[in-house]
Amino acid sequence: MFTGFVNGNIYVSFKPVKKVEALLVANEKILYAGCNKIVEGVIRLVECELVDLKGRTVFPGFIDSHMHLDELGMYLNMLDLRGIRSIRELKCRLEEYSRSFRGKWIVGHGWDHEIFEEKRMPTRYDLDEIVSDKPVMLSRICMHAAVLNTKALEATGLIGMKLPGVMVDEKGVPTGVVKEAFFSIAKEKFRATLTVDDYGKYFEDAMNFAASNGVTTVGFALCDMKSWHALTKLNYKRNFPVRVRVYLHPGERRPNEGGMYENKDVLDVVKKVGIKRGFGNEFLKLLGIKIVADGGLGARTAWLSKPYSDDPMASGYPNIGEEMLETLVKEANEAGLQVSVHCIGDRTLDMALKVFEDIGQLEDGRHRIEHASVLREEQVDKLSTLNVPVSVQPHFIITDWWAKNRVGEDRIKYVWPFKTMIKKGIKIGVGTDCPVEPLNPWETVYAAVTRGKYDGIPYYEDTKEECLSLEETLYAYTWGSAYIMHEEENLGSLEEGKFADFIVLDKDPFTLKETQLRNIKVIETYVGGKCVWKKENLA
Amino acid sequence: MFTGFVNGNIYVSFKPVKKVEALLVANEKILYAGCNKIVEGVIRLVECELVDLKGRTVFPGFIDSHMHLDELGMYLNMLDLRGIRSIRELKCRLEEYSRSFRGKWIVGHGWDHEIFEEKRMPTRYDLDEIVSDKPVMLSRICMHAAVLNTKALEATGLIGMKLPGVMVDEKGVPTGVVKEAFFSIAKEKFRATLTVDDYGKYFEDAMNFAASNGVTTVGFALCDMKSWHALTKLNYKRNFPVRVRVYLHPGERRPNEGGMYENKDVLDVVKKVGIKRGFGNEFLKLLGIKIVADGGLGARTAWLSKPYSDDPMASGYPNIGEEMLETLVKEANEAGLQVSVHCIGDRTLDMALKVFEDIGQLEDGRHRIEHASVLREEQVDKLSTLNVPVSVQPHFIITDWWAKNRVGEDRIKYVWPFKTMIKKGIKIGVGTDCPVEPLNPWETVYAAVTRGKYDGIPYYEDTKEECLSLEETLYAYTWGSAYIMHEEENLGSLEEGKFADFIVLDKDPFTLKETQLRNIKVIETYVGGKCVWKKENLA
Repeated sequence: MFTGFVNGNIYVSFKPVKKVEALLVANEKILYAGCNKIVEGVIRLVECELVDLKGRTVFPGFIDSHMHLDELGMYLNMLDLRGIRSIRELKCRLEEYSRSFRGKWIVGHGWDHEIFEEKRMPTRYDLDEIVSDKPVMLSRICMHAAVLNTKALEATGLIGMKLPGVMVDEKGVPTGVVKEAFFSIAKEKFRATLTVDDYGKYFEDAMNFAASNGVTTVGFALCDMKSWHALTKLNYKRNFPVRVRVYLHPGERRPNEGGMYENKDVLDVVKKVGIKRGFGNEFLKLLGIKIVADGGLGARTAWLSKPYSDDPMASGYPNIGEEMLETLVKEANEAGLQVSVHCIGDRTLDMALKVFEDIGQLEDGRHRIEHASVLREEQVDKLSTLNVPVSVQPHFIITDWWAKNRVGEDRIKYVWPFKTMIKKGIKIGVGTDCPVEPLNPWETVYAAVTRGKYDGIPYYEDTKEECLSLEETLYAYTWGSAYIMHEEENLGSLEEGKFADFIVLDKDPFTLKETQLRNIKVIETYVGGKCVWKKENLA
Repeated sequence: MFTGFVNGNIYVSFKPVKKVEALLVANEKILYAGCNKIVEGVIRLVECELVDLKGRTVFPGFIDSHMHLDELGMYLNMLDLRGIRSIRELKCRLEEYSRSFRGKWIVGHGWDHEIFEEKRMPTRYDLDEIVSDKPVMLSRICMHAAVLNTKALEATGLIGMKLPGVMVDEKGVPTGVVKEAFFSIAKEKFRATLTVDDYGKYFEDAMNFAASNGVTTVGFALCDMKSWHALTKLNYKRNFPVRVRVYLHPGERRPNEGGMYENKDVLDVVKKVGIKRGFGNEFLKLLGIKIVADGGLGARTAWLSKPYSDDPMASGYPNIGEEMLETLVKEANEAGLQVSVHCIGDRTLDMALKVFEDIGQLEDGRHRIEHASVLREEQVDKLSTLNVPVSVQPHFIITDWWAKNRVGEDRIKYVWPFKTMIKKGIKIGVGTDCPVEPLNPWETVYAAVTRGKYDGIPYYEDTKEECLSLEETLYAYTWGSAYIMHEEENLGSLEEGKFADFIVLDKDPFTLKETQLRNIKVIETYVGGKCVWKKENLA
């Protein structure tokens, strides 16, 4: 029943940093956080298990407030093509993989023709040589392009489309390579072939992967109905290795994700059945809906109030009209659901904040902004005044090293201005957007603390005042993420009464140089006091 | 955080009876059930609260596996007319009540013209004298008839119906008294005027009433969508005083409850949103659907395999065809929902058991039978073989004292044969069908233990072998009820790891004569270790 953990270097919380040496856990929760003597005394009285932490460091589990559990599960099950050096090698890998493959579509990820011996992209003919009886789709490392075999080109209908994005040879015949929206169409066709049980397998793998990374709760952004059914089925009578908090797509996923919102059928059915925010159990809860209001900086689809600095003709565009956004936010708000709005460009944020202001009732709703990458100074004030929490993804700093090209000298100051946000009292939670960025929290912690100082990031000098301290980062990655998911009473620290979700580390991050943060390893992960992951072959 | 309870006469469970003197509770659950010394030791170490039970008796909270929370709430809010002695007095009460009444319909219950000075039923003219500007509906104590004022007759459309059941005077003009199905029509019209918040008030009152009776969990049978919305709204971000487990009506409530099932719109929407059995939190969970497959013995609407002994022309009838029943059970089963089928007559049970047998997968589903009032010997065996649990209502024994008239000498042996059911290994849970029977568990315990021995019940002698022991009754009313609601791992006893749902009694039932069981009083009720009700003016 009881478990005592003693002799630990246990961080209960990060603001301010509070440490204890022992925890007493029962029925999934922390009963007492304090000194060895008391925990040992209780365990002796009730004759239960005592765990000696041998001085190791214990942290509250990380809470990734924004990630894609479905996509992560999908990637974990794909043919991994990262690092391969030739089309020849690609073919060998595909051949080997296809031998034991029993599914409908072969899907792979990670090739990069820049490092291929052949110095060319693979074609459908390369793939057809190996697999011609079922569709094959292999995405490029950048996730903006893929190569399809002939079967896949046919299955997706892309073979007949004469449009830029469906690459053709000199004779005008499709080569098999498709880009951007056409890659999305292919992905959706593939997803449509997946069953609820296929998704179930993805989720199990993704949750176990999260546990192995020291992530004990995830905010699953943009969950479609098939995923949701797979989760409720998986959750039926049994616990998950990590806690999942769900933001549903308000309407079923459209073939083109970037397209305008067309309907709200999912929101309607959720309203009809009367489920409100937080309904569910401690392993699976529905929180609300997610609205993808614009695109990203990479493809210049984030909607900016002034043109892109490296393309004066482009300002991006919204994926949703203000009226539809207002309808969705209003209806979700009235139905007792939380709304999470993806806004990368400042123009999109203007629209979202206007809607939030019009709707009112934000204290309780905690309707969130996702990313908020490009801000204007007065928008930071407005987020603060309206008390709107934000889910931030610090690892974008490293990956989107070209961001200053897009927004220029002036605007870069307010790109991911985390320190300013905190100073202004905005509640921030941390996410990874995984698999867009790595799920490993130490990569993100490193990014938030260093802002690319050691990685030659061009805008480090422009924004170094926005570096967060280690304490601030960890606080936002635990309590902050819990707060923006309405869970700060249950999760986000190791205070008494909260769930015993914690991780054991191989080093104490507070004793390391910031360059070493990425080397930290999680040794054990506990969720509800139960060990859900353990590093093998511990010395 | 911790609370210790010491010096108690604490019944942890009833099969076999297990007693301890102390409990240690934290985070809603029982951490330890054992001796004072250990509980005192832990409390001293962690410096928390210690409660001295002063030798009082503690029981696990009662679990009423079948009751109508909506109707109970409604009754608690009605004008109470029980015991009044004249139409004059009825008018006074109505006048007084109407003065501060702000709602749409005035509804009352409990008059009995047999005890009126005037020796006649009240009429619409009596009511119109007092209230003519809004509908008034006052039901007779038997719940089979009501008197409506003119406004209510108009609002319901009953004023124009020339049918038996709408009583008329010598000139053929409706008197205001309506019976049976026509009373149901009026009730439905009234219910249709209620808002989700009206229901919310009902549920709060009903749950507090349950807590005051020592009932800590209820199985809410036949919850309509308006009620469900009211409950999810009430549950939003706060706990209930008692735990509610819900069985939805598979299709929206039809005007005539006794009518055939017409659709399954609610089941369809629940399936669409993917909610499975047990989804929800510890205070509000959806378990499944309830199907009312026949009527009752009183009105001879329970469907029997041979005619009623006191009416050879009547055998009752089903409310649902076998095909529709099979569709509902099959779809609910596949959707991961529990099915609860109301069967009072043996012919109905034949149909239900056939469907259950055809569907299969009963171990995990625990699809239930409600009531199972009239059984045949081989049906008891079949319930046992198929492992079908039953929710029984022992208080029917007292209220339906005329049951032998209906079924005769031979069949009465297998009416409510609780002991036989237990001997054959059938899992039974206890319910009250409240407000049909009283919610007070001691009335039901008394009925199960005595079978009316002291109340002149005509069939006591015929069925006295079916009396349950006090232990058996209490076991079925706690663990048994938990089991049939898939909650035996969390509820139904005070074993370590379960929720600390318990009641403090003024007497130890095991020291009393069986005639005294009805006099037991609940002093305090704890749910999740929190005191949710306390008797005032304790000596």
